[in-house]
Amino acid sequence: MQVYLDYAASTPLKKEVLEEMIPYMTDTFGNASSIHSFGREMHKGLDKSRRTLAKLMGASYDEFYFTAGGTESDNWALKGVAESYCDKGKHIIISEFEHPAVLNAAKALEKKGFEVTYVKPDRLGHINPEDVKQAIQEDTILVSIMYINNEIGTIQDVKAIGSICRNNDIIFHTDAVQAFGYLPIYVKEMNIDMMSVSAHKIYGPIGIGGLYIRKGIKIKPLIDGGAQERKRRAGTSNVPGAVGFSKAALLRYDNLNEIVLELEKKRDYLYERLKPLDITLNGSENRHPGSLNILFNGIKGDTLLMNLDLAGIAVSSGSACSSGSVNPSHVLLSIGLSTQEAKASLRMTVGDNTSYEELDFVIVKMTEIIKRLR
Amino acid sequence: MQVYLDYAASTPLKKEVLEEMIPYMTDTFGNASSIHSFGREMHKGLDKSRRTLAKLMGASYDEFYFTAGGTESDNWALKGVAESYCDKGKHIIISEFEHPAVLNAAKALEKKGFEVTYVKPDRLGHINPEDVKQAIQEDTILVSIMYINNEIGTIQDVKAIGSICRNNDIIFHTDAVQAFGYLPIYVKEMNIDMMSVSAHKIYGPIGIGGLYIRKGIKIKPLIDGGAQERKRRAGTSNVPGAVGFSKAALLRYDNLNEIVLELEKKRDYLYERLKPLDITLNGSENRHPGSLNILFNGIKGDTLLMNLDLAGIAVSSGSACSSGSVNPSHVLLSIGLSTQEAKASLRMTVGDNTSYEELDFVIVKMTEIIKRLR
Repeated sequence: MQVYLDYAASTPLKKEVLEEMIPYMTDTFGNASSIHSFGREMHKGLDKSRRTLAKLMGASYDEFYFTAGGTESDNWALKGVAESYCDKGKHIIISEFEHPAVLNAAKALEKKGFEVTYVKPDRLGHINPEDVKQAIQEDTILVSIMYINNEIGTIQDVKAIGSICRNNDIIFHTDAVQAFGYLPIYVKEMNIDMMSVSAHKIYGPIGIGGLYIRKGIKIKPLIDGGAQERKRRAGTSNVPGAVGFSKAALLRYDNLNEIVLELEKKRDYLYERLKPLDITLNGSENRHPGSLNILFNGIKGDTLLMNLDLAGIAVSSGSACSSGSVNPSHVLLSIGLSTQEAKASLRMTVGDNTSYEELDFVIVKMTEIIKRLR
Repeated sequence: MQVYLDYAASTPLKKEVLEEMIPYMTDTFGNASSIHSFGREMHKGLDKSRRTLAKLMGASYDEFYFTAGGTESDNWALKGVAESYCDKGKHIIISEFEHPAVLNAAKALEKKGFEVTYVKPDRLGHINPEDVKQAIQEDTILVSIMYINNEIGTIQDVKAIGSICRNNDIIFHTDAVQAFGYLPIYVKEMNIDMMSVSAHKIYGPIGIGGLYIRKGIKIKPLIDGGAQERKRRAGTSNVPGAVGFSKAALLRYDNLNEIVLELEKKRDYLYERLKPLDITLNGSENRHPGSLNILFNGIKGDTLLMNLDLAGIAVSSGSACSSGSVNPSHVLLSIGLSTQEAKASLRMTVGDNTSYEELDFVIVKMTEIIKRLR
């Protein structure tokens, strides 16, 4: 048996989503920017997808921009705003446990003369909005705090942080790659100015994402060229991707409560049955419905991961984007775990396709392995 | 009857390519950066695709980087090199008739203090390597000249331009989006340091492209984040896209001579039969096998395009990336056409799927329309 418990890294494409994409990969083709009938057909698909996605997040049609994924969206948000507002100030606030896309975009800006303040999360994995407020300077132009942490799943008080930013005339961006499709998100009510989203975390295709940009925000393109995406993001529009993304999002928001309850039930089923193994939960109860990050007390992390992989169980030690690295998770260190504790921790994320049979298998195998390693 | 003669804007996905992609959109899933078995399976697909593409252009495996498309590749090449070599100099040379991706990336660099020289093509659409040589300054760090022009299809003497760059210790980039898959290209023999390519121009998927970067070239990432693409281009790897891209490229290079001859035959069939309509060829004989750009003497461009569209014939006045614009083609102006001549010109590109029946239909309709408009 092979069990995938790494839905936070990527989700399989849903059959209904692929079916929606196939026409745009077969009969309907062409360049959505072409003005002839073929181009117009493609453009219709793009247009409809944009409307759907914008609506689902409470944005208007012309505030949603397609990108190639969450990482591009994050880079664009940070670098584009930095370039557009550098005359106003050169200070940016992010959290210490952002996704590498935000973290490394911020570091690239530091090298160009921007100043970055890294707000520390508390022991439970929450950013205190008051800490963001304290970090604000005269020359702060941008705050970027992720909606849901990708490793421990904790949900941030985005609305409060957004409100602080608004009161201080600072742009607020949130990386919502792990949140969109798992929480109801209305950008206007949540005081969000910019929001990154991605399709492959919600059973949509890889290679497509988006950035919500509130009307009035100035932002330089990251990718210059043709006039696509209201002249803000050039490159031939990925129409099959856009169509798949919007279908995937619709499938979630049409049925969000049920999906979330089901995920939580499975996640908690696993958690309850692992508790006897002397574990500690990393993060808080206020988190992503499918997310479980636990510390196996007294275990060496690398050995555990390898043994699970050999047993056919796919989990992760950090995020996929940080993997391959021998360093302990920067997220777990940021919430106060020691290097050894961070290395003895695992991220397990259940998904729509996870079955109780799979979970039972994981529980048996995990119990065996942990006992053996101890 | 609907006839698509805009293959330079985008090509339909080949059935064999889609078939190769489908397993990576169904049974095989996960994040190629994950170290567990699911991730490794995805990574294998990515790896194999990279090897195939690198080999087809005579590069080594670790010199080929996946991007989301030609436009991103061009932006990365220009901006990444500019940032990495700005200490050495701030002068860049491109041609006047580059794709908007190169043109507007260069313009963005101008705003940041770089100096750009725009080399003019001759009346036939060729860049004289001697003109590139003349434009070189003490502080020139990069030359970017497209391999095949996307509107008039003319093929540049890339090898000679590359040789001049090499002799002057200047990096040479070429946008080969219209050339890769239509010409044999060996980057080492052609003195190319960097080369942009794209899948959807060769019957591969939209949303995936690549950049060849010769070993030893320094380049800052355009997109920071995770450690993908040898830490140079972050973002979850688009494995289905990569697999589709490499399959599409293989299908062409396994049979290039035949494909090219077939395209030329169809293109010339059309050209010969349109000649009685008082037309002038834009560009030269030395061009893309599917490309035909002709000036209909004494015709108003917009009317012609609209009439053809109504007759079910999809052609274009400029490139798709420039479309929607009321301005005449910058490419045609650059080779010396008047505004009126540029507007009375059409790009028609035949593709693998073009049939003689379609061409006969186009010839009849076009003759009718031209006669009516005159």
